[in-house]
Amino acid sequence: MKVNTNYSKLAPTYLFSEIAKRIKAYTQAHPEAKIIRLGIGDVTEPLPSACIDAFRKGIDEMASRDTFRGYGPEQGYDFLREAIAANDFQKRGADIAADEIFVSDGAKCDTANIQELFDAKSRIAVPDPVYPVYVDTNVMAGRTGESVQGRYEGLTYLDCTAENGYVPALPASPVDVIYLCFPNNPTGATATKAQLTAWVEYAKAHNALILFDAAYEAFIRDETLPRSIYEIPGAREVAIEFRSFSKTAGFTGTRCAFTVVPKSLAVATDGNGKPMSLHTLWGRRHTTKFNGVSYPVQRAAEAVYSDLGRKQTTALIDGYLENAKRIRACFNAKGYATTGGDNSPYIWINAKTESWAFFDKLLHEAQIVTTPGSGFGRCGEGHLRVSAFGSPDRVTEALARIDAIL
Amino acid sequence: MKVNTNYSKLAPTYLFSEIAKRIKAYTQAHPEAKIIRLGIGDVTEPLPSACIDAFRKGIDEMASRDTFRGYGPEQGYDFLREAIAANDFQKRGADIAADEIFVSDGAKCDTANIQELFDAKSRIAVPDPVYPVYVDTNVMAGRTGESVQGRYEGLTYLDCTAENGYVPALPASPVDVIYLCFPNNPTGATATKAQLTAWVEYAKAHNALILFDAAYEAFIRDETLPRSIYEIPGAREVAIEFRSFSKTAGFTGTRCAFTVVPKSLAVATDGNGKPMSLHTLWGRRHTTKFNGVSYPVQRAAEAVYSDLGRKQTTALIDGYLENAKRIRACFNAKGYATTGGDNSPYIWINAKTESWAFFDKLLHEAQIVTTPGSGFGRCGEGHLRVSAFGSPDRVTEALARIDAIL
Repeated sequence: MKVNTNYSKLAPTYLFSEIAKRIKAYTQAHPEAKIIRLGIGDVTEPLPSACIDAFRKGIDEMASRDTFRGYGPEQGYDFLREAIAANDFQKRGADIAADEIFVSDGAKCDTANIQELFDAKSRIAVPDPVYPVYVDTNVMAGRTGESVQGRYEGLTYLDCTAENGYVPALPASPVDVIYLCFPNNPTGATATKAQLTAWVEYAKAHNALILFDAAYEAFIRDETLPRSIYEIPGAREVAIEFRSFSKTAGFTGTRCAFTVVPKSLAVATDGNGKPMSLHTLWGRRHTTKFNGVSYPVQRAAEAVYSDLGRKQTTALIDGYLENAKRIRACFNAKGYATTGGDNSPYIWINAKTESWAFFDKLLHEAQIVTTPGSGFGRCGEGHLRVSAFGSPDRVTEALARIDAIL
Repeated sequence: MKVNTNYSKLAPTYLFSEIAKRIKAYTQAHPEAKIIRLGIGDVTEPLPSACIDAFRKGIDEMASRDTFRGYGPEQGYDFLREAIAANDFQKRGADIAADEIFVSDGAKCDTANIQELFDAKSRIAVPDPVYPVYVDTNVMAGRTGESVQGRYEGLTYLDCTAENGYVPALPASPVDVIYLCFPNNPTGATATKAQLTAWVEYAKAHNALILFDAAYEAFIRDETLPRSIYEIPGAREVAIEFRSFSKTAGFTGTRCAFTVVPKSLAVATDGNGKPMSLHTLWGRRHTTKFNGVSYPVQRAAEAVYSDLGRKQTTALIDGYLENAKRIRACFNAKGYATTGGDNSPYIWINAKTESWAFFDKLLHEAQIVTTPGSGFGRCGEGHLRVSAFGSPDRVTEALARIDAIL
């Protein structure tokens, strides 16, 4: 039997294994070193008690025949879909209905799976630097050629640089699908309403589909910034949005997310001019290949929208944002330009040297682990991603060390 | 933008919506009717207390910073992978290692996703009657032509009939991939070691891959029957196996499963004779498109392998098997030939008439809901699937009614 040989095109990702290798080499030479990790995008603080209580209640129901739940709806229980639509969208003036919400076990899965709905020849645009899942899943599906000098043939890369404030310009040549992520991973950049409006208008003019990854929207504190692309007029016709409870409420190990696929999306056809409903297609995919999120987990997610849940998740994110503010200030005080860290958990630092050189300096001289920007794409070279996930004490210690060496 | 038009080939599945429609029509005309559902393959009894306790402990850990877990390994935690390898395989003489186990949120997802590893032109064989996921996911990936009289062009259908005891014969023409499911859904048929040996030898001789769905293996009580295909010599070179906690421990609403992909699989190439590791490819897919199963759920699954968990899950399945035995005996006593129901939760009844006619008779005259066999494929016509999932009291009531009308 022959395999899907598109997998062979995948350039090996050395980023996190190379980081691990360098940490290991350093700690073997310096066994006394106390490493502080500001590299990874994973939360560190416990689940809010509102979620824990709801999670426990969900389990209690599974322990009794009268309240036991077997298979649930693949798209998620109504209680959660309705809470999401009302709180995350309708309250902010975005016209999204509960049956346009598809609950899943992760935004990674959803952003990976969505490309199954597209033609094999679709022209795909991705930002650079980029969350690797957008790229790799299209490579695996055969929508690219080989990797040449870190870029796959056939993909359109949208450069995100200091010059454009890490918000890319519109594509120079036509594309069918555009991945956008704001607040951005890895740059921490946010997009204004005017910037997103330009993208929505581009998509309308070119019948392109926007895939809007809003996994970090809960970190937005500037009320003038849109949290959802559906705050932009016309977005319901051109955009799918991905959300997650991972960063909002610390669910990285608990697993719950959702994707919004409006029924009014109007950019897709069968290639012969016949309009096709992406809502129907995603529904078909979701019900054929997925069997719903664990019931107690959905109850825990629902609790995010309770009064207590709101307060607790806001406090949780305030804590990470306070870390971010201090990290940013520390690097700025040393003369490094940064983006992000005000409405996002990531601080993107202009390293003024090669990414790995700055990574090594921080590891060797301050025992701090960060992430080299070059691992996220060609435009990431010369940058470093620093994550604000961590306890305040660890961040204080890390910043004291950085202050001493830079 | 153009969509994946393979979705348009999917024949609409009327089965469960048609069942719902007929139930609704009947209950509207007979509002006093007390419907008993023996149609659906979903469990009804609560989670074992061993699992509930472990589930709760997992949540307790998520409530405290010191024990909190963020992202886990995409392939599953070692504690669960090791428990699975030791208990489900090594104890039965099947040589499977922990790092060949990939933990997931469902066997539906895994049996749906596995085809991504195959070439677009792979020749696929499926049983008939069939679990629709095997077929639909290959249609969506473009490996078939149109549906003609209930069968997709380009697929090889393996007839399962009374004549062959619902265990199909080897394919007449060469295929690359073969889906098998034992104990079978929907027929309840099981395969002997000799029968599986023939399939393993066929696969070896033809470099074909067997996808062995063993989601119902926990229902096997006949110790001469294999529970895993890896009890057959040589299977490690030709077979991937799918398992689930859904039916074993009542996890349909809790969500945990796993897939075994041996490192010694030796049937796959790149089309030019270069051997390809399906273990490596599945690992790449799993880490790129999935982010692991909820941590507390993995703890609940691990508890299935504790002494108490073993006792409780055995008792749980004994209860369903007792239902199955009584259902089978009832139909046999009325002169209906059946298969399944001894080492499986499904009883496959030769209806001696068209599937829907017998469905309607049981609904209208006994207020019992079953599943018409014709919904699972052409060879299902003339059969009915009756599910043993349900409480003993309901089954007693259902059988009294059936006894009165047949």
